[in-house]
Amino acid sequence: MNKILKVNTRTNDIRMISCSEEELYWGGRSFIAHHFLHNVNPLCDPFGRNNKLIIASGLLGDTPVTTAGRLSLGGKSPLTGGIKESNVGGAAGKRMARLGLKAVLLEDAPDNPQSRILFIKKDHAELIEAPEIKGKGSYETLKILRNRYGDHTGLLCIGPAGEMGLAGACVATTDRSGVQLRVAGRGGMGAVMGSKGIKAVVFDDGGAKASEPFDRKALAKASREVNRILREDPKTENRHNFGTPAVVSVCNALGILPTGNFRSGQFEQADAISGETIADLIDRRGGEARKGLPCVEGCVISCSNVFADPSGKAIVASLQYENIGLLGSNCGIGDVDAIAELNYICNDVGLDTIETGAAIGVAMEAGIINFGDAEGAKGILRQVGEGTPLGRIIGSGVVTTGRVLGVRGIPAVKGQAIPAYDPRALKGIGVTYAMSPMGADHTAGNALETAKSHDPLSREGQIEISFRLQIRAAFLDSAGVCLFIRPVFVKDPSLAARLLNARYGWDWSYRDVRNMAIECLSAEREFNRLAGVSDNHCDVPEFMRTEPLPPNNTVFDLPKEKLDKIWKVQLPEDVF
Amino acid sequence: MNKILKVNTRTNDIRMISCSEEELYWGGRSFIAHHFLHNVNPLCDPFGRNNKLIIASGLLGDTPVTTAGRLSLGGKSPLTGGIKESNVGGAAGKRMARLGLKAVLLEDAPDNPQSRILFIKKDHAELIEAPEIKGKGSYETLKILRNRYGDHTGLLCIGPAGEMGLAGACVATTDRSGVQLRVAGRGGMGAVMGSKGIKAVVFDDGGAKASEPFDRKALAKASREVNRILREDPKTENRHNFGTPAVVSVCNALGILPTGNFRSGQFEQADAISGETIADLIDRRGGEARKGLPCVEGCVISCSNVFADPSGKAIVASLQYENIGLLGSNCGIGDVDAIAELNYICNDVGLDTIETGAAIGVAMEAGIINFGDAEGAKGILRQVGEGTPLGRIIGSGVVTTGRVLGVRGIPAVKGQAIPAYDPRALKGIGVTYAMSPMGADHTAGNALETAKSHDPLSREGQIEISFRLQIRAAFLDSAGVCLFIRPVFVKDPSLAARLLNARYGWDWSYRDVRNMAIECLSAEREFNRLAGVSDNHCDVPEFMRTEPLPPNNTVFDLPKEKLDKIWKVQLPEDVF
Repeated sequence: MNKILKVNTRTNDIRMISCSEEELYWGGRSFIAHHFLHNVNPLCDPFGRNNKLIIASGLLGDTPVTTAGRLSLGGKSPLTGGIKESNVGGAAGKRMARLGLKAVLLEDAPDNPQSRILFIKKDHAELIEAPEIKGKGSYETLKILRNRYGDHTGLLCIGPAGEMGLAGACVATTDRSGVQLRVAGRGGMGAVMGSKGIKAVVFDDGGAKASEPFDRKALAKASREVNRILREDPKTENRHNFGTPAVVSVCNALGILPTGNFRSGQFEQADAISGETIADLIDRRGGEARKGLPCVEGCVISCSNVFADPSGKAIVASLQYENIGLLGSNCGIGDVDAIAELNYICNDVGLDTIETGAAIGVAMEAGIINFGDAEGAKGILRQVGEGTPLGRIIGSGVVTTGRVLGVRGIPAVKGQAIPAYDPRALKGIGVTYAMSPMGADHTAGNALETAKSHDPLSREGQIEISFRLQIRAAFLDSAGVCLFIRPVFVKDPSLAARLLNARYGWDWSYRDVRNMAIECLSAEREFNRLAGVSDNHCDVPEFMRTEPLPPNNTVFDLPKEKLDKIWKVQLPEDVF
Repeated sequence: MNKILKVNTRTNDIRMISCSEEELYWGGRSFIAHHFLHNVNPLCDPFGRNNKLIIASGLLGDTPVTTAGRLSLGGKSPLTGGIKESNVGGAAGKRMARLGLKAVLLEDAPDNPQSRILFIKKDHAELIEAPEIKGKGSYETLKILRNRYGDHTGLLCIGPAGEMGLAGACVATTDRSGVQLRVAGRGGMGAVMGSKGIKAVVFDDGGAKASEPFDRKALAKASREVNRILREDPKTENRHNFGTPAVVSVCNALGILPTGNFRSGQFEQADAISGETIADLIDRRGGEARKGLPCVEGCVISCSNVFADPSGKAIVASLQYENIGLLGSNCGIGDVDAIAELNYICNDVGLDTIETGAAIGVAMEAGIINFGDAEGAKGILRQVGEGTPLGRIIGSGVVTTGRVLGVRGIPAVKGQAIPAYDPRALKGIGVTYAMSPMGADHTAGNALETAKSHDPLSREGQIEISFRLQIRAAFLDSAGVCLFIRPVFVKDPSLAARLLNARYGWDWSYRDVRNMAIECLSAEREFNRLAGVSDNHCDVPEFMRTEPLPPNNTVFDLPKEKLDKIWKVQLPEDVF
């Protein structure tokens, strides 16, 4: 996994190069961070010739470590104006890693819209004109690619939203069986991919063989320990049984479930959309409905599901918490079948559900449709695919939607929609939203896990919590493993270094791992500073500092001056 | 002119206070700059409770100096995210100054949209609910206000665009006779005014008496010299006869006239929309058509016109160069009657013609309508008033339009549309666009005046030129006089100080005036830096650095690192 494929999307020149010595130590998110800081003009137009879309394997991408194989997509975001990394499970990551690819760089940009497939196999890569999939939805596109290139490929594609350059566009992929459609949602990476004239990427790892780890035995041993700790963690079983929707009830009880365009933190129909309800429906409906599925092959958590209608026909896979929070409660929609359908349409047109759910909530506040109007919401989402002005507005994300429709108090930080945890009653995540180089992104450091041990309404300690979580997230995103295996590294911080050392023959300590994560964050922050989106200028939305959130009736009240000190916080030595 | 009216638009509390000692030295643009830096959180939401809309008189606002009485409107801009000052002629400024008002501050914001009139007369001000003018166009609103409050009032209002919070919204006013509708166009100040729930401001100066100048005789003498120099300047007669449209031929010859969404700098139908053609049509058509009109009473230049249709019925007053460049050539429209109508509709819905013309150009490139389709453009503009999704997109300005419609290469700097001088062939203005705290704004330092004496295609000297022009503009905007009297101060730099000293009894030299202007720029830059829109992060659009502009086939090629040195340039001592 020491090769980099450079694709000039303007000249069609494709070149395979070897990593530099330094690049060997970067993976996934940290590869993107350092590559951008060193090679990309921070003032570049996100849709221009100087931006890149990077697809990067995590450092553990070619190992059997559970959940490893998540793929990082990154670029300068059309939403935040800063660097963005968005990662995704599914089957493509492992295949890309098996091809020895640390990263694929989509560089430059064609003058005119194009619809091409980047096909990569062992010792060969090419750009293939594919007008026949132009404008097609993600589901159909992936099906066509699967039929054409076979089951043994890893696939990435964008939907019409990405082709149209809408800033809320995501990049889709599938699990090994093609059942699930999973997306790298945040930050508009689908639109950046569209600007490169790339509709899809195919990784065919036929004949390829993953690199031999430095110490296979040590890797296997550390990997077994990861699994053991995970299996012993009580959250694992809960996640396996209920998936991320388990969090609906938790967040509703805490009063942080976005409801009615972030005007309340509790939703009266929360029970109807809870993880328990969904698990029960899946059990009762049967047919194609399933739960406890892996997204990356071999995951010991396996928190994914297939949600089916009453006849047992699959609606969407996997139905997740963020989709429920943003497309459901935030839009006043308490019908889980409708939410699943909205989720399906978002996936198909190729839009991030968080950005889009928030945008629809704002459109509802503007009176375009009423809160709770699921049919209206579906209609708007279908308009995205049709390219109508309203569809394009929604597809451009929550800030554009709010600005164009004249709504004040837009739930976004750094131009990006706030996920399904209102920071007014979970203050640690507010610190992350405001200060993370990623903008409002729960995966950058989600304080929900601390809500039991640390009062989420208190101002105390939240900055330390966010800093620690951000460091941990930067490591996990750079290793290419799922955030859900974090309990392993909390329990045994040394395991992170042991895994990397076994894979690469390094001599790292826990301290080195943490430094790597901090350097990743620093590179991202420096890029953002040069791009003019320094965290000094970012904060939670003003209305969240002045309008109390029911039922706790609290505001986000950590002073900005205090937030700005986050990077100087002294953390304990031995805690991940 | 030492009073400040503070209007809390949420509580309706209205208070008249006296200027501080320091504030006495600020006027118009410099008042806005310093007030914002000292009193407004740079991170505030442009539409939130912490932004302000300031209406400020220039330092010479209550003097008979020619063109004095321009009114500055300022706030944190929803387009640029930084501080914005936009000034306008017409009758309101002199009346406001006569009421002794240095500034009116519209502070805080109501929770819900409101339509109110701020009525100000001698020793009294009140907010009056005015649901009857809600949603009305600027022309009808101003007519209603004129009927209700009489001819002796100065009026400001916003159109539907401002009420809807569209970021391209302007603030309109009239000349003394009510014939002309003039606007403070740039930066979305109309949307900020709308967010305060203020549809209109009425200045009734009945019974008010302008402050006595410190030395009436000296002021009269200096003022006469201003007029003499102006009358002797050859540009004055040209402006009087042809108005700003005189520049159409000049810019077309230079190859900087925006054409077809800034894809060319020459328009094949330029003759049909030139100042000469327009003057000729005005003469031939007669009826209401007129030229050589003043906008501010007593202006010795009097460059305004009334443009009429073939029957002599007025279409719009005054038809100006920017409107022709953006709504005309930039949209491929060579029919001056159609341009005048587009201008009228922009005025009526309350949109900046520069921002809107650029947005329509982008919409044409996106294929929404064809280049040259004047009827289509009118239809789109009417949709703004109707609040359709497409209308709202266009009304939100060129960046939003480009992003939503998926157009790459958007002609904007700092979120604001580029005016009708393409910087690829007039490089000095490119420096201003990139570095001015005002974003892409020709009034912040227009290098066109140097095009004869200094090669506009050369890279040499352009940074010095822009810096000098920016300083001069900051002085003129702070004095509340028109940019067109700049030849006076170029010829005799001491006159600026003489005018201020005669008015206020100061002991200023030319040097002090220049310092005042530099301090104004510094305050704006510091506010922007704290707001996260530092000039270090701004540049001309990337495509203008890579795509050559016909017919000169040049790009903007001053390195960004060089631009960043502008504020350190050493200027000669005695040149304005």
